[in-house]
Amino acid sequence: MKILLIGASGTIGSAIDKELSPRHEIVRIGRHSGDLHVDISDSSSIRALFEKTGRFDALVCAAGNVTFAPLDEMTQDSFTLGLKDKLMGQVNLLLIGREFANDGASFTFTTGVLSHDPIRSGASAALVNGALDSFVRAAAIELPRGLRVNSVSPNVLLEAMDNYAPYFRGYKPVPAADVALAYAKSVEGLQTGQTFHVG
Amino acid sequence: MKILLIGASGTIGSAIDKELSPRHEIVRIGRHSGDLHVDISDSSSIRALFEKTGRFDALVCAAGNVTFAPLDEMTQDSFTLGLKDKLMGQVNLLLIGREFANDGASFTFTTGVLSHDPIRSGASAALVNGALDSFVRAAAIELPRGLRVNSVSPNVLLEAMDNYAPYFRGYKPVPAADVALAYAKSVEGLQTGQTFHVG
Repeated sequence: MKILLIGASGTIGSAIDKELSPRHEIVRIGRHSGDLHVDISDSSSIRALFEKTGRFDALVCAAGNVTFAPLDEMTQDSFTLGLKDKLMGQVNLLLIGREFANDGASFTFTTGVLSHDPIRSGASAALVNGALDSFVRAAAIELPRGLRVNSVSPNVLLEAMDNYAPYFRGYKPVPAADVALAYAKSVEGLQTGQTFHVG
Repeated sequence: MKILLIGASGTIGSAIDKELSPRHEIVRIGRHSGDLHVDISDSSSIRALFEKTGRFDALVCAAGNVTFAPLDEMTQDSFTLGLKDKLMGQVNLLLIGREFANDGASFTFTTGVLSHDPIRSGASAALVNGALDSFVRAAAIELPRGLRVNSVSPNVLLEAMDNYAPYFRGYKPVPAADVALAYAKSVEGLQTGQTFHVG
């Protein structure tokens, strides 16, 4: 398969690369690194990306930014980044990418544990993750040509605990390699409309 | 309690009014009808509303628009209404309204069954409902002063089946009066961070 991997240089992206590259052709994509670049918050950047990649068999997005801030300090503007980048960025990867997707191609998006197991300062992340998990469920039933879409919802990563431990006390971190398996299940399996929870 | 009821003239709003008005003071609010008016997609309209209502003990929102369209015809723009109106409209009711909320006041928002049981043309509704159900869960743990927030996620309404039946074949419709009970549970009970599914 020809797999477009967005966020290829990140902790999850690297683990997905390691899991899938022995069996597939990986096009590594990042905002500033990789074979090709994209800013997923900009739909014209997404279209320009697909014009470069051409047709593909799987798209995996392990990228997406949201604002973390205490609810007390949040205003409407605190939600803009998450809505534009992690949420509509991934939705647009499907809305635009489907034109370039081969029959039976899959889209796999990244959400996260905060949708249902929240932490302080995580209201925007929760909103975005919940939105995507529900979008995936709904979009899957309308996709033509055997196209599929799933999300992977990881717990906090073991590799991120040096920085994130104070925010995730009591959470059982999961190795990125375990998270990568869920992407492989989505890409190489046949399920659609699912959220694969890891950890 | 002084309860602000947004969407008071709608099918759900009227049922909530009937359920709660025997025991509480209801301020009936609509886009064009009711005691006071608000456009929830406009944060300055929301602020102007609260400056008129003054302090309150509960806010119930039974309003919110999204675009219904076949996924095939959807673009980024098809999601704008839902993001601005039903999603950020209700989020902003909390972000702005908390300044006017008495200690222990509650916010109750409306989502819906499509977040987890999707229909054709429902991708934006699913996304918005899932976003709100997760937002409520996350925001609840950070609210000060005993403030609470829940969502009510109704199935399709019995009263709406004349218009909506073709879109909801196989769904078991629920009377608006039953849905109203979930709002009463949210307003008059003590739970927070919950999504009350009805039907």
